[in-house]
Amino acid sequence: MKRADFPEPIQQLVLCLKQLPGVGPRSAERMALWLHKSGMDFSETLAKSLTKVQADVGNCRTCGFFATATGCEICNEEERETHVLCLVEHAVDVLALERTGAFRGQYQVLGGKLSPLQHVGPADLPLDHLLARLREGPFEEVILALSNDVEGEATANYVAEMLESESVSVTRLAQGLPAGGGLDHADELTLFRALSGRTQMNSEP
Amino acid sequence: MKRADFPEPIQQLVLCLKQLPGVGPRSAERMALWLHKSGMDFSETLAKSLTKVQADVGNCRTCGFFATATGCEICNEEERETHVLCLVEHAVDVLALERTGAFRGQYQVLGGKLSPLQHVGPADLPLDHLLARLREGPFEEVILALSNDVEGEATANYVAEMLESESVSVTRLAQGLPAGGGLDHADELTLFRALSGRTQMNSEP
Repeated sequence: MKRADFPEPIQQLVLCLKQLPGVGPRSAERMALWLHKSGMDFSETLAKSLTKVQADVGNCRTCGFFATATGCEICNEEERETHVLCLVEHAVDVLALERTGAFRGQYQVLGGKLSPLQHVGPADLPLDHLLARLREGPFEEVILALSNDVEGEATANYVAEMLESESVSVTRLAQGLPAGGGLDHADELTLFRALSGRTQMNSEP
Repeated sequence: MKRADFPEPIQQLVLCLKQLPGVGPRSAERMALWLHKSGMDFSETLAKSLTKVQADVGNCRTCGFFATATGCEICNEEERETHVLCLVEHAVDVLALERTGAFRGQYQVLGGKLSPLQHVGPADLPLDHLLARLREGPFEEVILALSNDVEGEATANYVAEMLESESVSVTRLAQGLPAGGGLDHADELTLFRALSGRTQMNSEP
């Protein structure tokens, strides 16, 4: 006996939606049915929006941040400091740093980190490009703003070693307690690093 | 100071994705970035899939289930029983019942339930259509397979009253303990209904 199922176009849409991050089979089904019910207008807007992102948004050849027809928002800005460069993993990390308002220099997006398990080696990251940029520009400092996991640390160490012979100072983001976090919620490693990286509060007696 | 943000096409896509059920601002951002990274092929497939669903999938005029160019899978099947009709809220409910394999009759999808709070009254549901179908066809029984919440029960009672003067028997799904559920997990109302609806297991002494 053949059992009734969703019509083929809906099944195809479910298959597609299931591939999105964080979307399981049930949510994909729910989304597909919602889309079917919500009518032509919304689906058309979404479809157009999808193709527009692919057609209009690329990555900046200089720094790796998002770029559109008008170029890269960061590189286009002339008022930014040119002596300091911040190295991040992803284009979104640039936005996170921009939101703090504490950094007004240049960026370099790596697009990933060293990860032998996922077959990402030094040759897969734009490290040559980074080196060329540093040698061309008036950079005095490179800030490593990579994630704090094993791969991030390995990448940071690799880059620091690579820049050993260059005439730039290499720094990394401070490690310690996150804002609003109590000591009871901090893990051992975080606490250890917060302790060893403690800062002076009064003037030296 | 102007802060850097996502390029406009990505912002538009995030706004769109945020409207999907179960998708918040953070997941929408994650999806949009994933889509941007995954390249043209996938986005095109998804866009086409979206328009295809809208163009090719409608609702059957007879029963309200999904219908494509080849018609409704349920109504097309000639071997189905014609004397019993099952009333459900949504088209997906038909699939759930079909999966049990326990029902081989006709369906009627209401597309909703009575809900004064959401301004859904009897005139918003295809109740006239249901009546006409029942009077035309050789139906002997209407099974109410509506959800067990307040609105579902109100709808079931309304339909049962409406069919009072018709020559069909009106039944509803059994209420009781769900499969695999222990007594400790059942709420009072479920247990009360399971108790009052208890069935004989041996032959009457």
